Amino acid sequence: MTQNIYDTAEFFAGYSRLPRSVEGLAAAPEWPALQSMLPDMQRLRVADLGCGFGWFCRWAVEAGAASVQGLDVSENMLARARETTSDPAIGYARADLEKLTLAEGAFDLVYSSLTLHYIEDLRGLLEQVHRGLAPGGRFVFSVEHPMYTAPANPGWARDADGRLSWTVNRYADEGARTTDWLAQGVIKQHRTLASYANLLIETGFTLTRLEEWSASAADIAAHPDWAGADERPSFLLMAAHR
Amino acid sequence: MTQNIYDTAEFFAGYSRLPRSVEGLAAAPEWPALQSMLPDMQRLRVADLGCGFGWFCRWAVEAGAASVQGLDVSENMLARARETTSDPAIGYARADLEKLTLAEGAFDLVYSSLTLHYIEDLRGLLEQVHRGLAPGGRFVFSVEHPMYTAPANPGWARDADGRLSWTVNRYADEGARTTDWLAQGVIKQHRTLASYANLLIETGFTLTRLEEWSASAADIAAHPDWAGADERPSFLLMAAHR
Repeated sequence: MTQNIYDTAEFFAGYSRLPRSVEGLAAAPEWPALQSMLPDMQRLRVADLGCGFGWFCRWAVEAGAASVQGLDVSENMLARARETTSDPAIGYARADLEKLTLAEGAFDLVYSSLTLHYIEDLRGLLEQVHRGLAPGGRFVFSVEHPMYTAPANPGWARDADGRLSWTVNRYADEGARTTDWLAQGVIKQHRTLASYANLLIETGFTLTRLEEWSASAADIAAHPDWAGADERPSFLLMAAHR
Repeated sequence: MTQNIYDTAEFFAGYSRLPRSVEGLAAAPEWPALQSMLPDMQRLRVADLGCGFGWFCRWAVEAGAASVQGLDVSENMLARARETTSDPAIGYARADLEKLTLAEGAFDLVYSSLTLHYIEDLRGLLEQVHRGLAPGGRFVFSVEHPMYTAPANPGWARDADGRLSWTVNRYADEGARTTDWLAQGVIKQHRTLASYANLLIETGFTLTRLEEWSASAADIAAHPDWAGADERPSFLLMAAHR
């Protein structure tokens, strides 16, 4: 199965201190863009793949969803999610997304935030998402942007005018990348943007919107430590329907 | 109208010496990928936007197309295209693609190679392409990859291990970029990959395939002067249908 880095103590402790872990969706800079790609949530049956602490599950119910199934591989995260929820419309379950099966047509919306770049067999998971959606159902997800996951040594250089520039290499060379983020040896799967699109199309989805989230000038002014996040996209957001 | 750099003497002379100008499609490294995205050409009515010397127009007729309309803004290129064609199935016409109108449903395939990154009003042109296609008709095109058109100063750096790395900045900042390629002051329009996809979707197209063409290791071995073209994509290829 995919590496379950969220259940290593060092990673979990670090992850738990991130603004988006403490403050939820409002602290995720890409959330407004992702939210704009969601349908009207009224009465929807929702699944959240990689639900983490359950921030989206709770938002979805507040926004009118009929039911939300949160799925995650991390015991640590599910335990925290369950502690913060008493709403009967929300259920949490442990699931290895590499081996997930979804009941046919059981959901109107499948959502996933910053999870699919951990998955080795993405085609298999997309087939399950397609199967799990009712006809016309929506799939909305975010991943780390392929420009961000590609490089052998993710980092910055300066161009001829001294401008901060993201150094891209190994873009077409898909597969595992090991980085040290919160803990050593975190494994993510690099895929090209074309591969995300083609895998969706090949499993029967119709693409409806793409976003490549970059920080704005205002974001950088408010968060000087994000320098460079306005020069290249950090996140890829996609919406599709069955 | 869009800058017509192909009718400046210096640029035209340089462009005429490129391998793809002298030897045609076989010298365009992205051609096999682009060709694989084309439908069966038998009996199709085809338009080629930015037809240049007419290499694709002649290929399309040989592949069975019923008729091919080549359109280009450059008098120089059209003159050369006309010199090399006597096939009555091929027509050439001068057209400013910023102001193009196509007869409704007149074509089964609209093709465009490395032209749309010159267009300022791409939405307007895509609306015309959509109008010009019969129901189910195909649109297949290539452009310079957004990673390639984005930077203020296109160029290379070395990563921590000395690996050649493309320096990306200004990615989200769409609009004109002026570069010195064959002549000084060549103006291209940078758009994000998401914008190409969303403009197609918003004008009524269904995306069917994306390719981000990078050189292979074999390409680099055969063309050592292409060093780096295996590290990041040079071209974006897209296929869609009405």
